[in-house]
Amino acid sequence: MKKFKEGDVIGISLKDGKKWFVKIEKKTFGTHKGNINLEEIIGKDEGSEIQTNLGHKGYAFYPSLEEIILYYIRRNTQIAYPKDLGYIILKLGIKEGTRIIECGTGTGATTFVFSHFVGNTGKIYTYENREEFTQKAQKLIKEFGMEERVVFKTKDIIDGFDEKDADVLFLDIKNPQDYVEKVFSSLKKGGTFGIIVPTTNQVSDVLVSLERIGLVNVEVSEILLRKYKTNPARLRPDDIMIGHTVYIMTGRNLSIFC
Amino acid sequence: MKKFKEGDVIGISLKDGKKWFVKIEKKTFGTHKGNINLEEIIGKDEGSEIQTNLGHKGYAFYPSLEEIILYYIRRNTQIAYPKDLGYIILKLGIKEGTRIIECGTGTGATTFVFSHFVGNTGKIYTYENREEFTQKAQKLIKEFGMEERVVFKTKDIIDGFDEKDADVLFLDIKNPQDYVEKVFSSLKKGGTFGIIVPTTNQVSDVLVSLERIGLVNVEVSEILLRKYKTNPARLRPDDIMIGHTVYIMTGRNLSIFC
Amino acid sequence: MKKFKEGDVIGISLKDGKKWFVKIEKKTFGTHKGNINLEEIIGKDEGSEIQTNLGHKGYAFYPSLEEIILYYIRRNTQIAYPKDLGYIILKLGIKEGTRIIECGTGTGATTFVFSHFVGNTGKIYTYENREEFTQKAQKLIKEFGMEERVVFKTKDIIDGFDEKDADVLFLDIKNPQDYVEKVFSSLKKGGTFGIIVPTTNQVSDVLVSLERIGLVNVEVSEILLRKYKTNPARLRPDDIMIGHTVYIMTGRNLSIFC
Amino acid sequence: MKKFKEGDVIGISLKDGKKWFVKIEKKTFGTHKGNINLEEIIGKDEGSEIQTNLGHKGYAFYPSLEEIILYYIRRNTQIAYPKDLGYIILKLGIKEGTRIIECGTGTGATTFVFSHFVGNTGKIYTYENREEFTQKAQKLIKEFGMEERVVFKTKDIIDGFDEKDADVLFLDIKNPQDYVEKVFSSLKKGGTFGIIVPTTNQVSDVLVSLERIGLVNVEVSEILLRKYKTNPARLRPDDIMIGHTVYIMTGRNLSIFC
Repeated sequence: MKKFKEGDVIGISLKDGKKWFVKIEKKTFGTHKGNINLEEIIGKDEGSEIQTNLGHKGYAFYPSLEEIILYYIRRNTQIAYPKDLGYIILKLGIKEGTRIIECGTGTGATTFVFSHFVGNTGKIYTYENREEFTQKAQKLIKEFGMEERVVFKTKDIIDGFDEKDADVLFLDIKNPQDYVEKVFSSLKKGGTFGIIVPTTNQVSDVLVSLERIGLVNVEVSEILLRKYKTNPARLRPDDIMIGHTVYIMTGRNLSIFC
Repeated sequence: MKKFKEGDVIGISLKDGKKWFVKIEKKTFGTHKGNINLEEIIGKDEGSEIQTNLGHKGYAFYPSLEEIILYYIRRNTQIAYPKDLGYIILKLGIKEGTRIIECGTGTGATTFVFSHFVGNTGKIYTYENREEFTQKAQKLIKEFGMEERVVFKTKDIIDGFDEKDADVLFLDIKNPQDYVEKVFSSLKKGGTFGIIVPTTNQVSDVLVSLERIGLVNVEVSEILLRKYKTNPARLRPDDIMIGHTVYIMTGRNLSIFC
Repeated sequence: MKKFKEGDVIGISLKDGKKWFVKIEKKTFGTHKGNINLEEIIGKDEGSEIQTNLGHKGYAFYPSLEEIILYYIRRNTQIAYPKDLGYIILKLGIKEGTRIIECGTGTGATTFVFSHFVGNTGKIYTYENREEFTQKAQKLIKEFGMEERVVFKTKDIIDGFDEKDADVLFLDIKNPQDYVEKVFSSLKKGGTFGIIVPTTNQVSDVLVSLERIGLVNVEVSEILLRKYKTNPARLRPDDIMIGHTVYIMTGRNLSIFC
Repeated sequence: MKKFKEGDVIGISLKDGKKWFVKIEKKTFGTHKGNINLEEIIGKDEGSEIQTNLGHKGYAFYPSLEEIILYYIRRNTQIAYPKDLGYIILKLGIKEGTRIIECGTGTGATTFVFSHFVGNTGKIYTYENREEFTQKAQKLIKEFGMEERVVFKTKDIIDGFDEKDADVLFLDIKNPQDYVEKVFSSLKKGGTFGIIVPTTNQVSDVLVSLERIGLVNVEVSEILLRKYKTNPARLRPDDIMIGHTVYIMTGRNLSIFC
């Protein structure tokens, strides 16, 4: 069983079900039920009971990737959602040893998730042309000890990527259709790609550009997550749900550059 | 770049987009465009061009987990879907080093997926009371070289699991509500669980049983995958879609056994 | 072209797209762009331009049933939604001359919609055991001049309905399963029924009760409405959507009481 | 209670739940349980028991609009669906007395549905440039006794419609964006319109054209119908569902031609 140490990102849950996600630092953290001295958590077992200064009890635990994305990294609504990322990982075949080229880095949420699945033998090359985003994402990746697995590059991809023969290409940029010729030459034969865009116009534009370079068998999907109210005697879906995040375009390099 | 070797499960794609997923053995594989001598693929680079005896060209590649689940493992419609499994992995926080207890093994599709994400330091203990299922799943896991990561147990879980302090508990059984007391004592404090069931009645029954043992903050969700026709000038969703697979119940052990 | 008269429920739209739904009375109506003297609208053609006292222009029009339900009648979230009611009307075969028995009256929204489609030769018998609801609904129906088509009854249906041989039976009550024996004896052979309930538990309970009286071929459905953002260059679904209203159970009396 | 007469379109249901929709003519109708002499149904009450020549019992009834659309009119998958039409009727405010201009007539399914809701005081002007479609639709409308309510016109709408001041404009044509200037001049101020198209590209094109003529507040929606398996002890959605029919664009003429 792991023991909490300084710098860990942890979840804190009080008995009423309220949850927070914070980094363990030498400071106190305020809740509606009193303050928690984060320093005291250091050295405790994961899942340990904690207590606020007002005597309210709760637990500390290590968050899942889903919780980190949704509650710790999240800075705006444009973030990639766990429902989408989970599907993308299986769809693109990301696993230990996978070499991924990604653009853009953005908040680093996708880089963060990918880094957990490529293992020590995998690598992520992530491109971003806004220096402040690179820096924030770099800080995030370091916070979770994944810095060995990620190479950050603050540069435009107008001339393509520096690397060749990537296993996976992942694009979350504004106009993917303007870059496909350059960027797909970095994808190995048989490699997979994923492109996410929020609008139907972009889907059409990207499809045209992929046809242009000879990529066929592209798939377009969207993932809808429907949550339920958990009263067993009155089971029913939530009144409100997320209606849209992104369209996911995926495929495999089987036909080009041969 | 990896080279294909005997025993690998590979994808074969012809120029018309038809795909198959087969194991490389010393035999020929028949397609509508002629036969492919699988032995000749051994030693070739992934993504290499192949040819049928009738001269039709295509490519050989390593499949994604999604393709393996949907096209290689799939034996019936009850199988867990990639759309669900991807979400479950992020939701339960499965990653390198995770120790998972799973029941039942079934076709082994879920075990197969989990085994790719727990790394060499993780472990999956998978229970199943039908010997023939254990054997088939064991064969599947071995086929992909994951046997070091999985412990198979053909036994009933009426008395719970042999292991303690699992990071993750995953149940895909008929009456989870009959086992919760026994099985949840094997989940570490702060650990996560996932339970999948196809019907709303089961969701209600399981929710009642989880309340009984003091588990709160359970979430119930379903994932819908909507695919699109990929004609860029006539973009529209597929006429037909999968309407339902399973309800996914997830949560964390923060409140019981303390 | 119709002319607005006192007592009409109308829609008012300003140039910025803001809309309100009000009854024409001898008073002024306040908007964020100034006041509108409703009395001045009397005698104008539908679709006429109107003006606030601050000189802002807009239009007055007769609202659709959808607008009346969503913006004029609506008092709480429990109201039947246009997406559901439209489907129910076609599914139950409601049209000119249809004799409907309904319970309960509730806000009168469903009664209101049905009354527009049964014509002068049809009739709706609507039951409700809370007098204040009957009165409010009665007021609503009168407001739209449909009072000849609706018979209101403030009474419990524990002994069933007073009428026989209804073409359509529509139930929007808490425990439909407790009443089926009594109420279905009022449905003619070949007649249709609709029952709406918000939870899966209720769906199961009602299905059991319908089987008990020999009703087969019941259908259970739900209708999801997904709206889109209307920027043509950036077409995409709304970020948020209604996730659930009710489950709709429908069928036809072909097998019982024969 | 109505009595069946020659020429009526009726539903026939056998005890095993199988249903057919046929016109009463002087002939026999074959089923998997024997033949039914349709002539013998004439004069019977609706909901009456019937019998095949092999002694299997069933019932005859008048179908709902939903059944007529899905099982009697249906000739191809391009047909408007009840789930969409029900919503459109409420959304456009179609009711007794509504004057609708429609293009194109197509199979007549939409004309058929509308004709049931406009009453004797309403009228539908339906345009179609393929004579054979007009004729088939005309036959359908006559079959249901609605011919007084519908005016059929086999002509191109390149110069717009002959009528003015319609309450409702409904377009189900290939390139609505090419006609908006001409056709919207036939919609009264305050009137509503509906346009259905299957692809996202068309939605964008139509939105651009509507902006061009000054129409604002257009809504774009889609309706998803999810059906459930009706085993009360194993309630769950159908495995397969219709993934897409059409996008529905609706709005009101409040801003143009003033």
